[in-house]
Amino acid sequence: MDTHKKLVLGIFGFGVVGEGLYKVLQQTPSLNATIKKVCIKNSDKKRNAPAELFTVNKQILLDDNEINIIVELIDDADAAYEIVKTAFVNGKSVVSANKKMIAEHLPELLELSQKTGKSFLYEAACCASIPVIRNLEEYYDNDLLHSINAVVNGSTNYILTKMFEEKLSFKDALIQAQQLGFAESNPVLDIEGYDALNKWTFLLTHSYGILPKKDEIVFTGIQNITSHDALQADKKDCVIKLVASAKKLKNGKVAAFVLPQFVKKDDQLAFVKNEYNGVVIESSFADKQFFYGKGAGSFPTASAVLSDISALRYDYKYEYKKLFYNQQLNVLTNDFYIRTYVAFTDWEHVRKDDFESIEEWHSNDQSNYLVGVIHFEKLQESKWWKKNGVSLILTAEPVIESLDVAKLKKRSLELAGFAGNYTVG
Amino acid sequence: MDTHKKLVLGIFGFGVVGEGLYKVLQQTPSLNATIKKVCIKNSDKKRNAPAELFTVNKQILLDDNEINIIVELIDDADAAYEIVKTAFVNGKSVVSANKKMIAEHLPELLELSQKTGKSFLYEAACCASIPVIRNLEEYYDNDLLHSINAVVNGSTNYILTKMFEEKLSFKDALIQAQQLGFAESNPVLDIEGYDALNKWTFLLTHSYGILPKKDEIVFTGIQNITSHDALQADKKDCVIKLVASAKKLKNGKVAAFVLPQFVKKDDQLAFVKNEYNGVVIESSFADKQFFYGKGAGSFPTASAVLSDISALRYDYKYEYKKLFYNQQLNVLTNDFYIRTYVAFTDWEHVRKDDFESIEEWHSNDQSNYLVGVIHFEKLQESKWWKKNGVSLILTAEPVIESLDVAKLKKRSLELAGFAGNYTVG
Repeated sequence: MDTHKKLVLGIFGFGVVGEGLYKVLQQTPSLNATIKKVCIKNSDKKRNAPAELFTVNKQILLDDNEINIIVELIDDADAAYEIVKTAFVNGKSVVSANKKMIAEHLPELLELSQKTGKSFLYEAACCASIPVIRNLEEYYDNDLLHSINAVVNGSTNYILTKMFEEKLSFKDALIQAQQLGFAESNPVLDIEGYDALNKWTFLLTHSYGILPKKDEIVFTGIQNITSHDALQADKKDCVIKLVASAKKLKNGKVAAFVLPQFVKKDDQLAFVKNEYNGVVIESSFADKQFFYGKGAGSFPTASAVLSDISALRYDYKYEYKKLFYNQQLNVLTNDFYIRTYVAFTDWEHVRKDDFESIEEWHSNDQSNYLVGVIHFEKLQESKWWKKNGVSLILTAEPVIESLDVAKLKKRSLELAGFAGNYTVG
Repeated sequence: MDTHKKLVLGIFGFGVVGEGLYKVLQQTPSLNATIKKVCIKNSDKKRNAPAELFTVNKQILLDDNEINIIVELIDDADAAYEIVKTAFVNGKSVVSANKKMIAEHLPELLELSQKTGKSFLYEAACCASIPVIRNLEEYYDNDLLHSINAVVNGSTNYILTKMFEEKLSFKDALIQAQQLGFAESNPVLDIEGYDALNKWTFLLTHSYGILPKKDEIVFTGIQNITSHDALQADKKDCVIKLVASAKKLKNGKVAAFVLPQFVKKDDQLAFVKNEYNGVVIESSFADKQFFYGKGAGSFPTASAVLSDISALRYDYKYEYKKLFYNQQLNVLTNDFYIRTYVAFTDWEHVRKDDFESIEEWHSNDQSNYLVGVIHFEKLQESKWWKKNGVSLILTAEPVIESLDVAKLKKRSLELAGFAGNYTVG
């Protein structure tokens, strides 16, 4: 076997992941990979590596013919995009961990990668150490994928776990997560679901061959979840998780969203606690499969980057088979219903006309909530459920493909009576 | 992309898995795979498929030039070996689920596959639906694998779960497993660990590039485990699992065995209940990763076979990188110690001189057990711990690479005193 190609790396970024990769590579001599240069932004910062390794001039890496792999590990998605584009044009393969860049630019990057024949790998960008992209590409590569449900954001999962297990308030749990380094000092991207959304955007490409358009996927984070919700979850024998979800409906189209969800305590995703990530893949015949591991952190992320680098010894490429075959099947839809719990402080904040039926409601001094069925398009179109502290949490197995009309009529009548008599308090 | 090769299948066997595959393929039109012929042993049996599909003459499949893939799904390992050999020689790729055949003949089959340039895939042979071989080959393909621990036998896991959760006796749990189809009518291969051993034999090849020799791996099953042991496990906040285990020691050699083990209730493997399988892979940087899914059954096994067939569209081959590189590192060793629990009815049945130290012992009307440290070679050489109802169950994290000699001396003196005074009951 002489496929063992020599890998010469140019790395962009020497933060948590970049430095992790540097250490990991030092302990992986068999890989035969050399870091030739690392491009950094701030040359004054002290680094745990020889000074001659670093430069602030990106062209030194991009124009170096010996460097055959660019490893892109910077925060700035726009700068990353420029770097990666040039890398392809200059005949280099690219490994990236930049979920935001990939979510925003996958179609263009895919085209460039195909045109130049160079690989573009990014296992570290979703669920870090869990090889989810590779498995979706290689193993679940036919059209039998029923659903994929995942906890893809460690920060929010850490906070929810602490709210649930230690009865911490959202605020206290967030502070603890920040102290431990599981949440950014500016946690908005994690907390409000943007990070999970970015990851889900390209995981849909590898799951179902879908390239979602901007704003096409309904999402929120955990910003409005309260201790009361955690208590309700416990009563329902559930925990709350921010679940990224995709499901193939009977008509062949795909329902996909990133929303908080009640998860039964015996469900695999309930096993995913603290900063961990987990993915449950359900296919027609294999039944449920569960992948679990660290979704963030220096070494877990670096290890995924390392596996991508290692795969480049053999010029591995994602084939995007699902994207290129059966294209007529690869369509997102909002034409389905979901059963959801909604907690609120004031009934005024809930647009009750949006519901097809309300199956449960509760109100007392401490909390108000209802459980009802809503058409998914209503969530797509309206924003009331993200505002004024309204906490929307899907029930376990929330997707309803079609409603029983007779039942619905009866429900609507009940709802009219209920809403008419409704008083807070 | 015109890599979409036409697949023409000749299938051997139409039992649970073969019939499952037949049904699965009917629902996977996009695969473009055709079953041309199925070879069966008994032509009188009624089958849920057109009669013209079947033959009892294996040469009809093996000599058919149009058939490019032989799918081998029969029970008889020797007959399977003959079929697979001929298939390679006749220029066909092979997909197999026959763990016994693979465990016994992998070196020869590997040579044949390489000589003929044809693929040999067998994901279904270990953990059925869990893509463990593919991940070990492709993703964990460098030398950083710390350890791999797995529940690979669903029958024994079902029995242990029922003994633990429903306090059933071993016998009652076995009967229940048989009634549900999770255990064979002749359950010896499962119960006594042979099936797990077979799977572990070739998983070591994909994990560490080791081709174990016959009788090289120490193993047993769950045949001697009692309700008392389950009770002890509970007291130690553990469950009992039949764990297939491999660990890279500091000297680079690999410790591997298939033995019952106390597993902490918060360990990933404790999550693996009933007929499910699970694999925990620990690597230097990714930390612990956990794969979970159905390890047996018609459709889960057929789905793994299907994924192998699907990979043959692109002529996928296992590369056995670990076997061909770094061969000096790929060595099994018995030169380590383990901490183990041993329950027994009579002290006479325990060879006390084998122990380096005994750390805990207990005896009353109902049960006797000790917890001690033993050199692994002693287990390899002696068989007392499999006989006379002696129940050996490793402690959680059982492997000890080296002993503190001073501590050991003190322990030995204590042991001498303890053993001298020992009386049953």
